[in-house]
Amino acid sequence: MINMIPIGTIHTPFTKLEGMPIQPTGATGVEGTVEVFEEYKAGLQDLDGFSHIILLYHFHRSTGFSLKVVPFLDNQSRGLFSTRAPKRPNPIGLSIVRLDRIENRVLHVRDVDVLDGTPLLDIKPYVPEFDSREEVRVGWLEKVRGTVSARKSDDRFK
Amino acid sequence: MINMIPIGTIHTPFTKLEGMPIQPTGATGVEGTVEVFEEYKAGLQDLDGFSHIILLYHFHRSTGFSLKVVPFLDNQSRGLFSTRAPKRPNPIGLSIVRLDRIENRVLHVRDVDVLDGTPLLDIKPYVPEFDSREEVRVGWLEKVRGTVSARKSDDRFK
Repeated sequence: MINMIPIGTIHTPFTKLEGMPIQPTGATGVEGTVEVFEEYKAGLQDLDGFSHIILLYHFHRSTGFSLKVVPFLDNQSRGLFSTRAPKRPNPIGLSIVRLDRIENRVLHVRDVDVLDGTPLLDIKPYVPEFDSREEVRVGWLEKVRGTVSARKSDDRFK
Repeated sequence: MINMIPIGTIHTPFTKLEGMPIQPTGATGVEGTVEVFEEYKAGLQDLDGFSHIILLYHFHRSTGFSLKVVPFLDNQSRGLFSTRAPKRPNPIGLSIVRLDRIENRVLHVRDVDVLDGTPLLDIKPYVPEFDSREEVRVGWLEKVRGTVSARKSDDRFK
């Protein structure tokens, strides 16, 4: 068993699981804040040089999981690990958001697709040389490319 | 407190913390396998359509953390969250690797910068529309761009 602890809280306009954007792609321009707890504040130094950050967080409203799910972006059952569904054996969410500015221990971010009140687990700098890949195949998602920004969540992962 | 459990094990040629590549960028071509435990095997369906996957894993050899670290790629102290250093409040590692093929419940991967025996926490499909950003600023890492692939780890995070 591995123990994780919240290091902050993510605040967004999304207070319900239904009607949320699917991925930051669908949340363009949506503003939120990431409040880092006082005891971790010193770790934020130098972060303001980065335009984008990776947020890892706890899908705290997710309980249990199924190994086969019908994702928001499809109408047929898929293997869980080929999807970004929130109900997972380890319910860790990952979003890349734009960092506008840091005030004290509050990060002002944009393009945030996260539920309000979500516990923050980690912040990493987004570095294309580490994190971006080209010439990529995206399996079952190939057919929905370009439609993600218009789709919203429903209550299926409640 | 949030509890996580290993869902598999990552096998690589890297058995020591020293001399490892820094990020998948420095591990181009390095082959490894991701063994997913039997009980999660059904979740791998459809994953083989993706050329790249995101591995989330436990930095199991990391204990404790400092909020200021001197990263491998720099010679001055930086705020922890502006680095990818393994010793973090929640020691979750993130690597994007190339998926060559899946045999039963073993994923054959390439460009893997992970220590042998690392506990796997999650697998997510890598989708550029979700995970890739352009026109990015990378703060203190700007000056080391292009040199990452030639750098190796030392024992500073032991």
